[in-house]
Amino acid sequence: MDNFTFYSPTYFVFGKDEEHNAGKYVACFGGTKVLIHYGGGSVVRSGLLDRITNSLEMEGISYVELGGVKPNPRSGLVYEGIDLCRKEGIDFVLAVGGGSTIDSAKAIAAGAVYDGDFWEFYQGKPVEKALPLGTVLTIAAAGSEGSPDSVITNENGMYKRGASGEGFRPAFSILNPALTQTLSAFQTACGITDIMAHLFERYFTNTKEVEVTDRLIEGLLLTMIHEGPRVITDPDHYEARANIMWAGMMAHNNSCGVGRSQDWASHDIEHEISALSDCAHGAGLAVVFPAWMTYTYKHDVMRFAQAASRVWGCNMDFSNPERTALEGIERFKNFLKSIGMPATLAELDATEDAIPQMAHTCCYGDGRTGHIGGFVSLGEEDINAIYRLML
Amino acid sequence: MDNFTFYSPTYFVFGKDEEHNAGKYVACFGGTKVLIHYGGGSVVRSGLLDRITNSLEMEGISYVELGGVKPNPRSGLVYEGIDLCRKEGIDFVLAVGGGSTIDSAKAIAAGAVYDGDFWEFYQGKPVEKALPLGTVLTIAAAGSEGSPDSVITNENGMYKRGASGEGFRPAFSILNPALTQTLSAFQTACGITDIMAHLFERYFTNTKEVEVTDRLIEGLLLTMIHEGPRVITDPDHYEARANIMWAGMMAHNNSCGVGRSQDWASHDIEHEISALSDCAHGAGLAVVFPAWMTYTYKHDVMRFAQAASRVWGCNMDFSNPERTALEGIERFKNFLKSIGMPATLAELDATEDAIPQMAHTCCYGDGRTGHIGGFVSLGEEDINAIYRLML
Repeated sequence: MDNFTFYSPTYFVFGKDEEHNAGKYVACFGGTKVLIHYGGGSVVRSGLLDRITNSLEMEGISYVELGGVKPNPRSGLVYEGIDLCRKEGIDFVLAVGGGSTIDSAKAIAAGAVYDGDFWEFYQGKPVEKALPLGTVLTIAAAGSEGSPDSVITNENGMYKRGASGEGFRPAFSILNPALTQTLSAFQTACGITDIMAHLFERYFTNTKEVEVTDRLIEGLLLTMIHEGPRVITDPDHYEARANIMWAGMMAHNNSCGVGRSQDWASHDIEHEISALSDCAHGAGLAVVFPAWMTYTYKHDVMRFAQAASRVWGCNMDFSNPERTALEGIERFKNFLKSIGMPATLAELDATEDAIPQMAHTCCYGDGRTGHIGGFVSLGEEDINAIYRLML
Repeated sequence: MDNFTFYSPTYFVFGKDEEHNAGKYVACFGGTKVLIHYGGGSVVRSGLLDRITNSLEMEGISYVELGGVKPNPRSGLVYEGIDLCRKEGIDFVLAVGGGSTIDSAKAIAAGAVYDGDFWEFYQGKPVEKALPLGTVLTIAAAGSEGSPDSVITNENGMYKRGASGEGFRPAFSILNPALTQTLSAFQTACGITDIMAHLFERYFTNTKEVEVTDRLIEGLLLTMIHEGPRVITDPDHYEARANIMWAGMMAHNNSCGVGRSQDWASHDIEHEISALSDCAHGAGLAVVFPAWMTYTYKHDVMRFAQAASRVWGCNMDFSNPERTALEGIERFKNFLKSIGMPATLAELDATEDAIPQMAHTCCYGDGRTGHIGGFVSLGEEDINAIYRLML
């Protein structure tokens, strides 16, 4: 196991009706003037925004609102949010929404206290300082409610890039599984896929003998396989929603990824697709990840066979482990299909013509130096081949 | 799933040689005058104490030392530590040792800033405030390095009681698996048993449909079953030690116990034994837990069958789940025996004569009102019967 540090100081408040306490927790963490950041109409229509503003008013906390976050959140709104924070003397950012809203709020919170351009964080500068941030989560997917990460698309070139740093950990996160019950089956399935992708990105490692994190990842994957189909069949299943919501946080706060190398090539490959076609990130991952697995499994057949056996319940073929490894990938594909996820680039509104450009940008765009991936190092030709497996 | 809050703000520093950074982290968390608290001679003999004091001196931090913590730590030394902190103007407590040392340090840290008797915390008063605390862990077992808990034996009556509260979470914890390589096979096995007991206390729940935490607990138990025998056979196996050490923290920081009722009767039953006979806590649990399981399994046969199947790899007997449940308990007993743990009260130097008194104190001692256990509520007669299963 590699040496590591792990720090997850977010105060998690989980369960029914907890959004009514948002104001109380903002006050606990010192907020006096809040930017409420959110996306589209559903937060307003459902009455959630009213519940949040009421809870702030009960505490005598003033606020301004900035809505309009879109999936694959853009840099333009971040700049607008930073200006607003400075103009209004904001001392706390409250994100109400899913991963896109939280990621946009993180960028605003860091940018508001930084003299330079916030995009520098998305080019590799670690985020050490930011305004304190709270979240009220409405989609179990990105894990941004407990992670030190954020992903933003720069409209100047349509680069989708991630930033990271302890300054990005929320002060508190409110997770009410009932808020996710209104999501469509498609949005829910995208979330399930995203959570599983966060786990697989950590699972495929070159670090030897990391049984404890292997087992934790496998446990969370088994949870998703058990609960995923239940919420697709019965969107109002609170218990299944609750299990998925906690799994989504645990999948990405890195408690199951410490001390081991990780991969993350599939996320990079997907980001090029959603930056261009604006597809849902989870749907993109459903297309990318099986293709990445098919291209790379020979690098460590036994690791893929272990996943097939422990996660997918395949019988180990001891005379031919490769067959077991491939069976695991097949089961993953079938699972994704069963929850309604796409399997091809065409279903994401991306065309074959776009492949060379996506592969090039993935390897060289915005300062990258030619290779991605911690498990298998992939160059432009490899990425091209992986995109072609998605046709 | 029940509503819950989860807050684990400890900064974990994990890996080889990290104890050399103790001074740096004390400084980070604002310590200027430190109480170093430790147990017996091994911390001195191994040179660990010197490495810690050197690292403090490098940062210009002054310190006083208080050694002498014994297993099943006592109230007397806690009072001494509290007086010392007040007299010396201590602003940071650094525990160097295992769970006993850390628990004693927690009691001192809370008592030093409390006007009343620190024992009130061990009678149920939540710990909200304490001096900041750091730990350098030398035994993977109690999980106190990441938990909000502490257990102390009051010499006035020999009550062994637990206290809890967010004030007890360490500011930082340094976990170097290599420091555990010098433990005897017996001490190591006691730690393995304690970690597994923390997991089973959470596993046996009456809360329905908590798949995510079921799976996380099972994953950690599988890790212990895989790595436990490896360190008993090869004490210098760094990777196995590392997996056990992270599992020990994860087993007890409650990330796998949230949103579900828990049991904890076995811990209460064991505390009476070790308070009287001064046996090692882990050894006591090895005797108690299988007896508790044998007495209670009929309360929820399917839960025991699930553990047997998923954790112990038993084939499910669908025509007779009870048989599978009992096979799981038998496998646990055999596992404990294989790592050298005792199976009877006699091996703990506790006699049959002591049973009635232990059962009575367990149910009524120090303010208790007659029943213990969150999975099955047990009265004095039940506890008597469980002790008799250990003969």
